[in-house]
Amino acid sequence: MTTTADLRTPALLVDVAALEANADAMAARRPGLSLRPHVKAFKSTRLARWLADRCGHTALCAATLGEVEGLAAAGLGHDVLLANETLDVDRLRSLAHRDDLRLTVAVDSDETLAAAVAAGVPEVLVDVDVGLPRCGCEPGEAPRLADAARAAGLMVRGVMGYEGQCQDWTEVERRRAEVERAMAVLAAAHAEVGGDVVSAGGTGTHALNEVATEIQAGSYLLMDTHYARLGDLPFTPALSVLATVVSARVRPGGWYVLDAGLKALAMDHGNPTAEVGEVFFCSDEHTTVLAEPELGVRVGDRVRLRPAHVDPTVAKHPRLHLVDGDEVVDVWPVDLRDW
Amino acid sequence: MTTTADLRTPALLVDVAALEANADAMAARRPGLSLRPHVKAFKSTRLARWLADRCGHTALCAATLGEVEGLAAAGLGHDVLLANETLDVDRLRSLAHRDDLRLTVAVDSDETLAAAVAAGVPEVLVDVDVGLPRCGCEPGEAPRLADAARAAGLMVRGVMGYEGQCQDWTEVERRRAEVERAMAVLAAAHAEVGGDVVSAGGTGTHALNEVATEIQAGSYLLMDTHYARLGDLPFTPALSVLATVVSARVRPGGWYVLDAGLKALAMDHGNPTAEVGEVFFCSDEHTTVLAEPELGVRVGDRVRLRPAHVDPTVAKHPRLHLVDGDEVVDVWPVDLRDW
Repeated sequence: MTTTADLRTPALLVDVAALEANADAMAARRPGLSLRPHVKAFKSTRLARWLADRCGHTALCAATLGEVEGLAAAGLGHDVLLANETLDVDRLRSLAHRDDLRLTVAVDSDETLAAAVAAGVPEVLVDVDVGLPRCGCEPGEAPRLADAARAAGLMVRGVMGYEGQCQDWTEVERRRAEVERAMAVLAAAHAEVGGDVVSAGGTGTHALNEVATEIQAGSYLLMDTHYARLGDLPFTPALSVLATVVSARVRPGGWYVLDAGLKALAMDHGNPTAEVGEVFFCSDEHTTVLAEPELGVRVGDRVRLRPAHVDPTVAKHPRLHLVDGDEVVDVWPVDLRDW
Repeated sequence: MTTTADLRTPALLVDVAALEANADAMAARRPGLSLRPHVKAFKSTRLARWLADRCGHTALCAATLGEVEGLAAAGLGHDVLLANETLDVDRLRSLAHRDDLRLTVAVDSDETLAAAVAAGVPEVLVDVDVGLPRCGCEPGEAPRLADAARAAGLMVRGVMGYEGQCQDWTEVERRRAEVERAMAVLAAAHAEVGGDVVSAGGTGTHALNEVATEIQAGSYLLMDTHYARLGDLPFTPALSVLATVVSARVRPGGWYVLDAGLKALAMDHGNPTAEVGEVFFCSDEHTTVLAEPELGVRVGDRVRLRPAHVDPTVAKHPRLHLVDGDEVVDVWPVDLRDW
């Protein structure tokens, strides 16, 4: 039996019971094809396969061409949406001609539509700006883009619009109101664009979005402290970074130091949380944790850190260790890293 | 000829002229073995080899066992310091028995010394706390640890102490005063510990530290906007992330969106800087940049982003593209990633 004591540190751990509970809680609300899991959140084809088998979520969502390529190569190309814009005609073309992939790409401009046409991509969604200043066309542009796509011989499956501006708003009624406002914009665009698909949402809004035919959520599976602070989500943190105490100042006002730092933990949503003590700061390969002597932390101990943001934390690691308590029950490669 | 237009994005670019100028500016102040380049800052054995050949810095510094293993495997094991504490006896032992590696490790406790002894590591430095709340023993402990190491048959090469607390202080005289204070602590410990080596310093203090026999600097080579803001360092940013404009809202108060986000750029020191416009925010795979129409940015354009912190940015990427203007003159793997 392999235990966490046998692992080199830092190491990514996934609590299997929490993963299963998170998957099932989402599937109860969003079964089968009403959820399009976003693989950017976990970057592992083994996890995507596990989720498809367990919950019937066989249509997937990707943020990068590398993720699409990896999903197709792993036999998960049943229905993959590149929920992002790209101008890379060469890579799109080789994807568009695979027999093992049904590819749909988001377009939000004449240029991205032209790339899809040039590459021979058969199906698109029109990506509509619903309030997050990022990708997505102005809502009034959507019908024109849909017409242009159909005129070029493409199937327009519908619309997409990510209400990312409110995913992490802590007041649930304020979040709900913004989702309604954003989805009214998307529904109006959809009425003019047509197609069967309205793709939207995320972990923070999955239960509030009544317009989307499919929710694009991924972070809920591994869950992080940032989403957990919302309080109304039925998911618990499943991801942690196992680290070793490599130095300790055991005295009043003292600290201990872990061998996992900001190269192992995403910092964009703030510091990680330690099992014991209060995180003071992270540097490249260390986290300093304030801890009084009575906490009993000693050099050589193993401590788990919970990241504030799971998606970019996973992307920093080569593999996920699935654990049941301290037993390592499986190891899944993070095979969708990089681009 | 390969140009940056041929690269997939996001892609890490290294401006060769800036890299050469940075290497030479440091070597003019800290020639040969008076600098121990810290490979954690660039994680590439090709770059370490280039630097050793150009400037004679053949003694190297590493933050992880994986970096030490990679340096030895690449024939760069002439004199490698693991400037960090570890309890991993198994990995230390296989390193200690390599014929192609002279390994020195930092110790700051009975436990880390015991690991070195158990692994058969022949040489150590005593790591002393000089004011950064991280690794390093209390200064008064250093002689006892040195005695214990010698009693166990190890060679004690000297001391190490990282004045990381002031590396980025913008007032140079305040920074100088703190370096002097910290190095007085280290010099006192050295007087009791003995040995030839006083290893300390970094990019921000390399010119202020008059006690260290060798400076541990690495970030100066690729340089980032955070160090550049100090104003007194003779180094210029050499690293950028090449990205493609995948969406644009060309209107007054508009923005454009790049296909490089916080998975491609370290965020711990803040947002990156764009060549054109003002960075608004980064998300997983996107950077939104505020840009008025007269800036002329269009979908499909390529834009370079300068990271605020080079070390963890490099660690997110598989390779460095060396560029002379828009020409790609070489590609070096980031072969010291992960742990």
